[in-house]
Amino acid sequence: MSADNNLDLVIRHADVVTASDRFRCDIGVRGGKIVALGHGLASARQEVDASGLLALPGGVDGHCHLDQPMPDGLRMADDFFTGTRAAACGGTTTVIPFAAQEKGHSLKAAVADYHRRADGRAVIDYAFHLIVADPTPAVLHDELPALIRQGYSSFKVYMTYDDLKLSDRQMLEVLDVARQHGALVMVHAENADCISWLTDRLVGEGRIAPRFHGLARPAVVEREATHRAISFAELVDVPILIVHVSGKEAIEQIRWAQGRGLKILAETCPQYLYLTAEDMGLPDEDGSEGGYEGAKCVCSPPPRDPENQAAVWRALTNGVFSVFSSDHAPFRFDDPHGKKPGGKEQPFHHIPNGVPGIETRLPLLFDGVRRGLLSLHQFVELTSYRPARLYGLYPRKGTIAIGADADIVLWDPTRKVRIANGNLHHAVDYTPYEGMEVTGWPMTTFSRGEMIVRNGEYLEPSAGRGKFLEAGLPEL
Amino acid sequence: MSADNNLDLVIRHADVVTASDRFRCDIGVRGGKIVALGHGLASARQEVDASGLLALPGGVDGHCHLDQPMPDGLRMADDFFTGTRAAACGGTTTVIPFAAQEKGHSLKAAVADYHRRADGRAVIDYAFHLIVADPTPAVLHDELPALIRQGYSSFKVYMTYDDLKLSDRQMLEVLDVARQHGALVMVHAENADCISWLTDRLVGEGRIAPRFHGLARPAVVEREATHRAISFAELVDVPILIVHVSGKEAIEQIRWAQGRGLKILAETCPQYLYLTAEDMGLPDEDGSEGGYEGAKCVCSPPPRDPENQAAVWRALTNGVFSVFSSDHAPFRFDDPHGKKPGGKEQPFHHIPNGVPGIETRLPLLFDGVRRGLLSLHQFVELTSYRPARLYGLYPRKGTIAIGADADIVLWDPTRKVRIANGNLHHAVDYTPYEGMEVTGWPMTTFSRGEMIVRNGEYLEPSAGRGKFLEAGLPEL
Amino acid sequence: MSADNNLDLVIRHADVVTASDRFRCDIGVRGGKIVALGHGLASARQEVDASGLLALPGGVDGHCHLDQPMPDGLRMADDFFTGTRAAACGGTTTVIPFAAQEKGHSLKAAVADYHRRADGRAVIDYAFHLIVADPTPAVLHDELPALIRQGYSSFKVYMTYDDLKLSDRQMLEVLDVARQHGALVMVHAENADCISWLTDRLVGEGRIAPRFHGLARPAVVEREATHRAISFAELVDVPILIVHVSGKEAIEQIRWAQGRGLKILAETCPQYLYLTAEDMGLPDEDGSEGGYEGAKCVCSPPPRDPENQAAVWRALTNGVFSVFSSDHAPFRFDDPHGKKPGGKEQPFHHIPNGVPGIETRLPLLFDGVRRGLLSLHQFVELTSYRPARLYGLYPRKGTIAIGADADIVLWDPTRKVRIANGNLHHAVDYTPYEGMEVTGWPMTTFSRGEMIVRNGEYLEPSAGRGKFLEAGLPEL
Amino acid sequence: MSADNNLDLVIRHADVVTASDRFRCDIGVRGGKIVALGHGLASARQEVDASGLLALPGGVDGHCHLDQPMPDGLRMADDFFTGTRAAACGGTTTVIPFAAQEKGHSLKAAVADYHRRADGRAVIDYAFHLIVADPTPAVLHDELPALIRQGYSSFKVYMTYDDLKLSDRQMLEVLDVARQHGALVMVHAENADCISWLTDRLVGEGRIAPRFHGLARPAVVEREATHRAISFAELVDVPILIVHVSGKEAIEQIRWAQGRGLKILAETCPQYLYLTAEDMGLPDEDGSEGGYEGAKCVCSPPPRDPENQAAVWRALTNGVFSVFSSDHAPFRFDDPHGKKPGGKEQPFHHIPNGVPGIETRLPLLFDGVRRGLLSLHQFVELTSYRPARLYGLYPRKGTIAIGADADIVLWDPTRKVRIANGNLHHAVDYTPYEGMEVTGWPMTTFSRGEMIVRNGEYLEPSAGRGKFLEAGLPEL
Repeated sequence: MSADNNLDLVIRHADVVTASDRFRCDIGVRGGKIVALGHGLASARQEVDASGLLALPGGVDGHCHLDQPMPDGLRMADDFFTGTRAAACGGTTTVIPFAAQEKGHSLKAAVADYHRRADGRAVIDYAFHLIVADPTPAVLHDELPALIRQGYSSFKVYMTYDDLKLSDRQMLEVLDVARQHGALVMVHAENADCISWLTDRLVGEGRIAPRFHGLARPAVVEREATHRAISFAELVDVPILIVHVSGKEAIEQIRWAQGRGLKILAETCPQYLYLTAEDMGLPDEDGSEGGYEGAKCVCSPPPRDPENQAAVWRALTNGVFSVFSSDHAPFRFDDPHGKKPGGKEQPFHHIPNGVPGIETRLPLLFDGVRRGLLSLHQFVELTSYRPARLYGLYPRKGTIAIGADADIVLWDPTRKVRIANGNLHHAVDYTPYEGMEVTGWPMTTFSRGEMIVRNGEYLEPSAGRGKFLEAGLPEL
Repeated sequence: MSADNNLDLVIRHADVVTASDRFRCDIGVRGGKIVALGHGLASARQEVDASGLLALPGGVDGHCHLDQPMPDGLRMADDFFTGTRAAACGGTTTVIPFAAQEKGHSLKAAVADYHRRADGRAVIDYAFHLIVADPTPAVLHDELPALIRQGYSSFKVYMTYDDLKLSDRQMLEVLDVARQHGALVMVHAENADCISWLTDRLVGEGRIAPRFHGLARPAVVEREATHRAISFAELVDVPILIVHVSGKEAIEQIRWAQGRGLKILAETCPQYLYLTAEDMGLPDEDGSEGGYEGAKCVCSPPPRDPENQAAVWRALTNGVFSVFSSDHAPFRFDDPHGKKPGGKEQPFHHIPNGVPGIETRLPLLFDGVRRGLLSLHQFVELTSYRPARLYGLYPRKGTIAIGADADIVLWDPTRKVRIANGNLHHAVDYTPYEGMEVTGWPMTTFSRGEMIVRNGEYLEPSAGRGKFLEAGLPEL
Repeated sequence: MSADNNLDLVIRHADVVTASDRFRCDIGVRGGKIVALGHGLASARQEVDASGLLALPGGVDGHCHLDQPMPDGLRMADDFFTGTRAAACGGTTTVIPFAAQEKGHSLKAAVADYHRRADGRAVIDYAFHLIVADPTPAVLHDELPALIRQGYSSFKVYMTYDDLKLSDRQMLEVLDVARQHGALVMVHAENADCISWLTDRLVGEGRIAPRFHGLARPAVVEREATHRAISFAELVDVPILIVHVSGKEAIEQIRWAQGRGLKILAETCPQYLYLTAEDMGLPDEDGSEGGYEGAKCVCSPPPRDPENQAAVWRALTNGVFSVFSSDHAPFRFDDPHGKKPGGKEQPFHHIPNGVPGIETRLPLLFDGVRRGLLSLHQFVELTSYRPARLYGLYPRKGTIAIGADADIVLWDPTRKVRIANGNLHHAVDYTPYEGMEVTGWPMTTFSRGEMIVRNGEYLEPSAGRGKFLEAGLPEL
Repeated sequence: MSADNNLDLVIRHADVVTASDRFRCDIGVRGGKIVALGHGLASARQEVDASGLLALPGGVDGHCHLDQPMPDGLRMADDFFTGTRAAACGGTTTVIPFAAQEKGHSLKAAVADYHRRADGRAVIDYAFHLIVADPTPAVLHDELPALIRQGYSSFKVYMTYDDLKLSDRQMLEVLDVARQHGALVMVHAENADCISWLTDRLVGEGRIAPRFHGLARPAVVEREATHRAISFAELVDVPILIVHVSGKEAIEQIRWAQGRGLKILAETCPQYLYLTAEDMGLPDEDGSEGGYEGAKCVCSPPPRDPENQAAVWRALTNGVFSVFSSDHAPFRFDDPHGKKPGGKEQPFHHIPNGVPGIETRLPLLFDGVRRGLLSLHQFVELTSYRPARLYGLYPRKGTIAIGADADIVLWDPTRKVRIANGNLHHAVDYTPYEGMEVTGWPMTTFSRGEMIVRNGEYLEPSAGRGKFLEAGLPEL
């Protein structure tokens, strides 16, 4: 008997890249799992030749928003079907969107509701982060511990947004629950009061075009909250992960904390590598300030400038960041439920925050590999391995190794692609990266051994084939 | 046909740990290479059950001294036979000692001589670093480029020691050669003039006991040279590796440079985790200052104090260090060619520098895994994976993956061992770690698929079975 | 005619020390002002020989609490009479206590009330800081601008204490008023929520002895608020002064901000140079934890440890601190209105915060001059010159120069004094510095040319001779 | 009798500004000293009305080169006569040029020679720094201690320039002498080997225009030497002063050291506030690279860029710098003994280093006062008070106080002046600041009570009226 008898799938001549290793071999898959690695594996029901392509662990998008209930008539364009379809086409095989508690409601109810939204729709596997917006004693002492045990081991807290933000005291209490139960808290770090004070001044002066969104959230606002979150983590003695870090001021704080031995983790996103404040509009002479088009790039924290982009690239290389996510926020531009609430152009503070990016995440980062800014292994680590570990999905996800799910992407490192929304698979009517050319593209995607994208073509696997993943505890 | 037919060796039920991954499977070996990974591999000529043990890539000791020609009647106790025997018993399967140029002589001659010393004696594989002590134009423009092409891609320079140290200008010239040819320069960073000035003062005051070695080389002396070496690397635009970093002052400089995006790599050693200045002797009332026993722990830079030890542990965890080596320097204590030159107790500046440690390197660091100070993956990364990459030996060495050499250690993570020189396999008459208890020990060692240590017992493989490895260019 | 005819007072042979200069001469005073400096001034109605003594500008205590209305039955032991008497005996000739707004009440009312408390009682001159506890639109836009114009140009805000603390938004609004009108905001920087969270935990565990006050307010709590206050000042673009900085963590933040060119000023106090957490009690075996005596040293931020004391001394020397104040908080120990509220020993969080120190401030710092830790000029700068400038009292106060008020202290730099509460002139029944010996003591104090202390003897000048000083705008 | 009888001079209605104070009064002078300050001083032989002008302590230029013997046929254009004349016209009343040892010669001989050059020529007072180029045992143990006692208490050492530079060991030995005898060492911090390596490469590539001077001495070269000098000072435990700091990299090191409590002092100069690398020439299309005109601005360290200028201004404000000097180096441009050695345009490394600036130093810094970049008091501190203290001349020089020399400048803070070499009084044929407009100019200069410049007109006092000042020990 051999390890490779009765295989469902063999990927031949694979140039496998993991977070640390690179080796050439055949990959044998049985029952959705990788069961054999070696040269000359016995033949299988399905054979795929990977010659000339990299075989990478499928991407794990640790921060994206799909079909999340929204206030004020807003509506996300992507549900679990369109969102996971787009993810798969972008080389991602696991997504972790958010089951968001509403103030005054239970967290359990949010989870139950979110499962209903996901059921029967996802084409790749998924786990849930929780959003804790109302940490009542019941939530802290009953719901959260139970949910952690049930496979929801990461939760996000907000330091801004009126309907979500926690007080400092509430943050400490949530962090303490995480410490006791081994969960991981993700923090959106911006100072709410600074933003409201600046916003009121800008709006009072009639400065309401989309570009003023950036002026209402300068880097110091993010830096302050980052330092504060770090201090809370230090006080409670628990790791945290600062999400969507936009530039050098916050990076300086995080790196300072890491140097002191604190377990402060951090994430960044494509928008902080490729967009700048100018993409939200430029001041101009007739006062139109670049028009409303800039609303497409309104997200929080806002994009900064080239010097900050360089700092983010550098921090991807030298270990400040652990995770590279999309923060996919699928609001249509020309839509009364999207970037034009009520169908109208709105003052900047009424524009829903966020940019789409679930499908373009991997190619945008990979282009940095081509330019020598980070290594192939760092690419895998940031986009798949580390999010899988941190969110309790490793070793099922995040690597190509015996026993892992056969979530594999065959990647063409030399393919040049000009990004165009018309070629993307989400339900949003724009991409902020329209027209950019990148080198390197995911050609073929396997999810648990099933080929769901082939040579760039979406194969229309059955909606609902994607399974919910019970997350274990984070491994740092 | 299967990947696993005709295997020489199968290691069954292995709990494999690499720099990033951990998975359970059988490991199939043919022709000294890993050729199959999977469950239930076909049977092989040799079968080993690894149940209950970790299967780790064999250690790569990127900094050790064996049979290196010495001035002034000094003699290293370990040659390639005893040194590699001890390494193998300590879980190390590759060593990289130094072919050292003498001033006034060619580098090629040093390499040729060093091959003669190695030939027919090593029991595990080895590569050579070069020591460049006399960078004449011929060395810089002819010998070094040729040697790099021939498989000697890393060289060490000294900022101290009269017979070895380079001027600043010479360092720049050597770094420039490294930049042009893609080699890696290792730097011993201590300021020679500061040391000589302090030494003259101490000796002039009759302060000559071994413990004054530490006072002649305070942290500022190491920090200054570290900053200087970093500056040279920045000016020349080339990576460097600072070896045997002893504490927080040098670490602060290195981390500062890394934060600026410079490629400054760093190494530390067991002596900076476990020894302090007190191990070189304590001041006492009768003036004997701890006696000559402290000479056993005289090395450069010298051990510091517990606060510095903590800083070194922290820097192992947060990415400042890439490599953990032994800096094995095998001088016998009670020996006219060793720590008692000429057979006598000597003033501190006549004591040969260095401590033995080739066999204890891995267990001493592994104890930090047990104590939660670093992860299993970091352990593999620091002791095997990263030195293999940096010194051009990857993917032959440094991992357990298809195509790699079957250099594998079966490690018992729960075994408690009290270190005793009587149980070690080097030719030195002491260990500075005598009596320390560690948890975790290498039980069985394979070199290219050949079992050379079994269950702690050295199997006496043929001397000379170890092969010289031509190093490729460093991968950072 | 000469500059020195018709003098009221000549101080002969003075060894004058100012913030920058030192010179020997006679000092001629007329109408309470310094009108002539030179050798051999003409004779005056009153002649004083200062031979052997330093002539220093009288101290300006920029942070002290006198007869401030308190909640919960607490009462300050010192009113304007006993407080200024003690100040004068300690070499201080100007005090700046706080007119404190109560939530729900107007600031103007607080000022009027506080004038009533001061009128007819002070024996030295005084100005008022304001405490803004309820920054309503009326306070921000009417009261504060009017009060600044009327001579109240500095105000304090609290980031902790339930009855005083401002929200982040309120802080921004107060800072913005300061920016518009050129006033200076003093900040008590500790994170309220962290303290309440820690306090609840400690009290819940029955850890209520005075020493737990320190554990409820660790350095990270002060550091976080310091960073936050700095960020607000940066955002609003206005200088601030962080008061009573206790140690290295907050100092690191302040120095970081200063290095970036921000106008962040800072103050420290004697308690951070001479007390440690141990003075609030030590853990002991029978659980009594040092007993209630430690309540005497309960203040906020709490005293830290010797390493932090050294950091504070260093920051006095290298320019981080501008001001050295007493933060005199006169609560009697054995008193139902003081440190034993309701007459009982209380859990730590019910102990009123603060230590007395208005009379010992200058000698405690001067001892550092003797020990070579700071210069005489730095002593004058920190205790008199800089507070006078920052609080709009310069050049009337803070120097010995033509035109300045003749507020002069004749100081014996060699006099050794053992501090004993029995020799002090405040109305508090203890001093935290009981038994400490210092070298250097104020012998004779002049206020506007009137000798009010002679050779250590309080001369009982008429209560009410001290005048209210309308402060100008701060000079940084 | 009065303090103000029999005065030689009264300056009436003076608006006196010192390092810390500002007051209005008459200044009475007798025997060259300030003897009375007050309103309505008795009348004197000479009366000057200072209404509308500031009365400042005369400038102390702590770093300038006059008639210093030069190698290779170079010759300084200014001797003690023209140099001090220009200084006086620029508001400076004390200069401290350098008595420079030649290698192989004694230091005493250099001092004797330099006195001969100064005797009978200076129109203002002067002290000497020493340059130690050859620290033989005789120099270290005999000459230096004797010279310190005789009034030469500061000496400069060079880390670059072949004829001047010391080895690290020599620097330690010189610093140790300074420590033992209380002297102050000034350090020119640039790494000699880096410069020679870069120069050889540039020259080898034919890149020889003046602007390549800047590329041969990038900021890292200055930063490295600064860190090294700091380390030596730390090791020896002695203060040092880093001269002519050019920008942010060196500033970062100095500020880091100051934060650790080390006594590292620093100086900067006008050229680092007003010039950039572009003033040494711009790359252009025809290869002429701005022509030879850029040689006028060749100095070491070289001018950097606007970001570095901003960093230097900031460090003047926040206490990093203690001293602002001219580093006046009077080489004529169109001169075979000056910037065109041998009468020819030369490769950059043959151009003598340095720019003239003894007369423009004060106005160029004062313009920063007008722009709000530093205070009037900081201006006095940096240009007069602190150099007087550090170089042992206080309280004779550096202030306006009873007993001080009557070295006083009446300064018009509102006068706009366009700098033109034709209006300057040095013997150099250019100024690098030609055409710049500044606000604020010294109108009238008194040296020891003698008016030597009146309303901008040089009064031709007798050459030789300037006296040698025996320096006391530095006061930090």
